[in-house]
Amino acid sequence: MIKTEQAIYTVIENGNITSPSGFQAGGAPIGIRKHNKLDLGWVYSEVPASAAGVYTLNAFRAAPLLVTEESILEDGKLQGLLVNSGIANACTGKEGLVNAYTMRQAFAEQVGISVKHAAIASTGLIGVQLPMDKVMTGIQAIETDGEADDFAQAILTTDTCTKQLAVSVEIDGIPITIGGAAKGSGMIHPNMATMLAFVTTDAVIPADVLQQQLKTTTDQSYNMITVDGDTSTNDMVLVLANGKAGNKELNPKHPEWKKFCAAFQYVSQELAKKIARDGEGATKLVEIRVQQAQSAEEARKIGKSVVASSLVKAAVYGADPNWGRIITAAGYSGATFSPDKISVWLGDVLVVQEGTPVSFDEVEASENLKQDTVVITIDLQEGNAEATAWGCDLSYDYVKINASYRT
Amino acid sequence: MIKTEQAIYTVIENGNITSPSGFQAGGAPIGIRKHNKLDLGWVYSEVPASAAGVYTLNAFRAAPLLVTEESILEDGKLQGLLVNSGIANACTGKEGLVNAYTMRQAFAEQVGISVKHAAIASTGLIGVQLPMDKVMTGIQAIETDGEADDFAQAILTTDTCTKQLAVSVEIDGIPITIGGAAKGSGMIHPNMATMLAFVTTDAVIPADVLQQQLKTTTDQSYNMITVDGDTSTNDMVLVLANGKAGNKELNPKHPEWKKFCAAFQYVSQELAKKIARDGEGATKLVEIRVQQAQSAEEARKIGKSVVASSLVKAAVYGADPNWGRIITAAGYSGATFSPDKISVWLGDVLVVQEGTPVSFDEVEASENLKQDTVVITIDLQEGNAEATAWGCDLSYDYVKINASYRT
Repeated sequence: MIKTEQAIYTVIENGNITSPSGFQAGGAPIGIRKHNKLDLGWVYSEVPASAAGVYTLNAFRAAPLLVTEESILEDGKLQGLLVNSGIANACTGKEGLVNAYTMRQAFAEQVGISVKHAAIASTGLIGVQLPMDKVMTGIQAIETDGEADDFAQAILTTDTCTKQLAVSVEIDGIPITIGGAAKGSGMIHPNMATMLAFVTTDAVIPADVLQQQLKTTTDQSYNMITVDGDTSTNDMVLVLANGKAGNKELNPKHPEWKKFCAAFQYVSQELAKKIARDGEGATKLVEIRVQQAQSAEEARKIGKSVVASSLVKAAVYGADPNWGRIITAAGYSGATFSPDKISVWLGDVLVVQEGTPVSFDEVEASENLKQDTVVITIDLQEGNAEATAWGCDLSYDYVKINASYRT
Repeated sequence: MIKTEQAIYTVIENGNITSPSGFQAGGAPIGIRKHNKLDLGWVYSEVPASAAGVYTLNAFRAAPLLVTEESILEDGKLQGLLVNSGIANACTGKEGLVNAYTMRQAFAEQVGISVKHAAIASTGLIGVQLPMDKVMTGIQAIETDGEADDFAQAILTTDTCTKQLAVSVEIDGIPITIGGAAKGSGMIHPNMATMLAFVTTDAVIPADVLQQQLKTTTDQSYNMITVDGDTSTNDMVLVLANGKAGNKELNPKHPEWKKFCAAFQYVSQELAKKIARDGEGATKLVEIRVQQAQSAEEARKIGKSVVASSLVKAAVYGADPNWGRIITAAGYSGATFSPDKISVWLGDVLVVQEGTPVSFDEVEASENLKQDTVVITIDLQEGNAEATAWGCDLSYDYVKINASYRT
């Protein structure tokens, strides 16, 4: 166990989506992706769990999102979820929707849960129908007793690594665990949701409270990352809370509510950062910290604008301390602030003070841009609000990956 | 002369910013850019001209924009304009503003015009002070009798070619000429204005009418291009009308007003397209035509969203007919439309019909994406409005150029 943040919560070594009590997960190769890669994953809870979801705001919502939302709206519970990678089942018309319903039904039957407690998700190529023969054969081979690592593998597309973790937090003197797995590498610019992320917990918490907290947390985690400014059709975050820990019901009036929220936010932000760091072609994680803004919303606008700028991203790739691009991106963010009060640091090197360039050590600044995690701080001197956004640099490999992703 | 569009106007062969009567222009190398490149340009009108300008909406407006706007607000007239490339004089604090005023004053004195009739512009690196000794020496060597080609050269930065043209249109039986020159290659995502563009005409037209028409035209030309989604601090379009043609004063009640507007729009759109085609690292011009939208604004949103998508741009670079990215970008544009009514063509190849994928000839579609100008058409079946947006593909060279622009 690694102690963090004054031991509010502890990070579990090699933690994953099955670290919370009563969850199982697995994955298998069913032939949608090439080279026998794992491409079907599932999560199963021993009992129906309180569930919450947030979905993409793209006008084209993929079929699985419609079906999953329908499940959650039934009674706020989920007991299992099925994910395929390789094909997104997005922009696939009525046939795609029928396929999504068929997947949900077959999965529910296979693992013995109510259809309304089954969720599905897909990620991959848009506009192509799922090979339903392979999907159905895959579903019929599912055994709930699998490996969480296989699940984390099975949900990936252009990702280069799995993204999973778990933390433990003590509530009512009882250890509660929160685990999660996510995928995402390209078409990352979440709006109210993100690429696929799945979080499990054994906490006792009602679905409506969980839903409210998921929205709040999403704005400070998944919604603060960008890889390429493209908001996907398949973005979705699902949270399942199966109550196995046996704590008193969590809600904002519970004396340890903030502890739970902090742990939940940590898991969400870490998953979001793992997605940003593994952005297509990325060589670095870029973290934009906006301080002393008028409001959190203004701070978020600036952070996302800077981290999304192709020019800033290319400069970070080249370790070029070209701060002009940073304040230009802040300037077109739509946020309100005084240009003559802004200060900017590249790592710990001050480059702009109250709107005026300062002379700085170019070599030191460039070194700071060569780090594995590049931190850029923007201070507005306008108020007390702050926000952090995460993204990655823009490399030749981003172009390479995306000039030939499909063909 | 090339006849176009039912001879409403004619394109002048090798036309430029001095094609209209009474305008002169020139350029010289003064040592701001490397390799003795031209980096100081000027335009001079024999008489004070009605003037109109639109400027960036970036919160950080460069000093020259403030000074130029001040000039135009004096009495709606300009007689000369001075441009330097290499350094943008943006985010340069009080010193930068003083330098901008000094440039305007020295230029006005050198060419013998009123200070209030002088405009200045700068483009290049942000956050660096101008070498005022070189600038002043350069200004003191200006002779108004120069070459328009030198002006078109002197305003460039990472551009690979000059961008200029002129058209002639008959008003009141008199030939009126409109000429223009522009620059722009990176940090191109104009908002209410664009990178630098300068248009001259010998038409008689009052400043307020010109200003109104410039705004309208800008929304259908400069504001419809994007290279990288970054809105510059220095975007500016200036129009000078010196009245040398001697037509009856142009305004919306003039019987041939629409003819003038068509010619003016043609010049503006051509300059905008030249900028898009010469986008940093671009190998192709990408044109997004949005048809049958509810409103022109909705059509523009979709066009700009698609043409700005890094994933669409990379797919065009790789000639990959990955239309899923196109409708995804339409989907997150914020425009209102029914996903099940959208149709998409790559060149003349239909790939999506009323929201459903259709089988198409992959080779033919890929061929269409290999053209010098790639046309993508999106039909919404929602109304009668339309819009066209222009951009370019995303290549390795964009990353190369921007990873090391400054150092």
